[in-house]
Amino acid sequence: MALSNDLLLRVANRQSVERPPVWLMRQAGRILPEYRALREKVQGFKNLVENPELVCEVTLQPVRALGVDAAILFSDILVVPEAMGLPYQMVESKGPWFENTIDSPSDLSNLQIVDPEASLGFVLDGVKLIKGELNDSIPLIGFAGAPWTIFVYMVEGRGSKTFSKAKAFLYRHPEASHKLLSMITEATIAYLKAQIKAGVNLIQLFDSWAGILSPEQYALFSMPYISRICNAIDEVPKTVFPKGAFFARQALSEINCNVIGLDWNMDIAETKQIVNGRKALQGNLDPCVLYAEASVVKSETLKMLRAFGKDHIANLGHGVYPDTPLDNVKCFVDTVKEFAYTGE
Amino acid sequence: MALSNDLLLRVANRQSVERPPVWLMRQAGRILPEYRALREKVQGFKNLVENPELVCEVTLQPVRALGVDAAILFSDILVVPEAMGLPYQMVESKGPWFENTIDSPSDLSNLQIVDPEASLGFVLDGVKLIKGELNDSIPLIGFAGAPWTIFVYMVEGRGSKTFSKAKAFLYRHPEASHKLLSMITEATIAYLKAQIKAGVNLIQLFDSWAGILSPEQYALFSMPYISRICNAIDEVPKTVFPKGAFFARQALSEINCNVIGLDWNMDIAETKQIVNGRKALQGNLDPCVLYAEASVVKSETLKMLRAFGKDHIANLGHGVYPDTPLDNVKCFVDTVKEFAYTGE
Repeated sequence: MALSNDLLLRVANRQSVERPPVWLMRQAGRILPEYRALREKVQGFKNLVENPELVCEVTLQPVRALGVDAAILFSDILVVPEAMGLPYQMVESKGPWFENTIDSPSDLSNLQIVDPEASLGFVLDGVKLIKGELNDSIPLIGFAGAPWTIFVYMVEGRGSKTFSKAKAFLYRHPEASHKLLSMITEATIAYLKAQIKAGVNLIQLFDSWAGILSPEQYALFSMPYISRICNAIDEVPKTVFPKGAFFARQALSEINCNVIGLDWNMDIAETKQIVNGRKALQGNLDPCVLYAEASVVKSETLKMLRAFGKDHIANLGHGVYPDTPLDNVKCFVDTVKEFAYTGE
Repeated sequence: MALSNDLLLRVANRQSVERPPVWLMRQAGRILPEYRALREKVQGFKNLVENPELVCEVTLQPVRALGVDAAILFSDILVVPEAMGLPYQMVESKGPWFENTIDSPSDLSNLQIVDPEASLGFVLDGVKLIKGELNDSIPLIGFAGAPWTIFVYMVEGRGSKTFSKAKAFLYRHPEASHKLLSMITEATIAYLKAQIKAGVNLIQLFDSWAGILSPEQYALFSMPYISRICNAIDEVPKTVFPKGAFFARQALSEINCNVIGLDWNMDIAETKQIVNGRKALQGNLDPCVLYAEASVVKSETLKMLRAFGKDHIANLGHGVYPDTPLDNVKCFVDTVKEFAYTGE
């Protein structure tokens, strides 16, 4: 089961590497013409996500096109709330929409305990197909939303500018909030363990809405549940990406995860000082750099690599934007792959 | 010209006060039934903004209803790009929309130098009416958008999730970006000086989109222009509110402003340590606290007041959300007004 390219896992496990591994959040998606062509044929995002063969195909597209050092499962964090009993639709150019939401504490009684083998088999079958196709070449990253981010969708029912419905729920119903977050946490642990059993080599928790909480609320309503998930999983390394939660870096460096994902707001030198060598770091080039000329993409990527130094997984600070020129994505990947750590 | 309540100006000037002054960003607006009633009668947001009598009326509504310690001019940061030659519409429930945008460096030649007396007289007339009505009771706050935030609207033409068009412009056209930011800066200085001449007692720069830049880009493309404005204005105290730019607190504490506005992401104790007594601080209660029960509003407000201590202007960490219960807004204001600094 040894992988021919295990750079990602070696960095996550704090072993030495010749150069940083590189992959991109949202590498499987609209930046690739082959993905756009597939979307022309398959109407509806969920018809992709729920079909294991298509999940496999879309996951592998960027591996072939870009030569990245890791594949990431093509799926959606919202399959978890759906499995808990809140079905959603993906509305073209608008985003997710839940018909039913958690409006009051009594709505929690409508939620179900998740058996991933029963309700999320399409993901697990996809993982098995991908692993077969990858044939031990590179690692496969599994993922889930962090409990707070899933909570936001379950309460808001869609994206938001202010997230005031979800945040108001925390202030109005702190006990029910903790209960719901615990339920999401248990579902997420079961789901990630099933992904690992099916073959993923590392898991990433996306706390996409981390940055809308105050430091105090984050410490109360997000961090403990992330920590509980990290403690429950010891089979593979764990990455946590707390988008916008600059204030959580210290606490994250003290929980049982292996890698902290950084967005482009987080200064590299300052973060290294805060994390103080306790975790590997992933990120964090501004995705908008990839709109510049190739020479700028290259120089900004090199600047980032030098600022991070070792124990670094090269990535953007956010998912790559759909209209990014593909040549610049390739330039970013190639610049990392041509980089080599020097002697010291 | 002495004001009977000059708490705000005393804190901005670092003089001692018995209790913190309190006002709310967006206090003039949809939280007030009298504002909503007026909007029923006057169709279109811009028909309010461009009418000095209505500007005066809307500015004074929260002063009467809430008993706040400062009035803030009711207007829109987008009157500046409009005066520069890019007219906008306010689309109901969608936000601002510019028919023409800055798409390439050559578009800069279409922009005009702003003469505020000629093109922004409706604001200045509004200020004079408000000053007459306030009759030296409390200070009037004038404001403008920070140059980077105005730049975003001029390039994007509307709000955005990723702001990738504006950010891409910085990476693709750094020289033209600096030229445009300089033009906005000059227009803003002229506009703020005209507001001051008309009677405002303090000015606030809103850098609403500060948080979408990397620390490095912020240092290059936002901070120098904010600093230039602060250096150009010495008639009244200056507040800078860099929404989301937690990384800019150190630099802001070293420029020629008097008050730094904080959003609710910025930890109070940490910020005090960074700013180290060099500036007064404004903020920063999470606006979503005002959705909780009154007892929580009160306890969270008191916790904030105690954490800041002196040299503090009480406010939310963002504009008050339109659906906030008015009684809770009053509870917030009253809690501050009943607070008193103790001996030490």
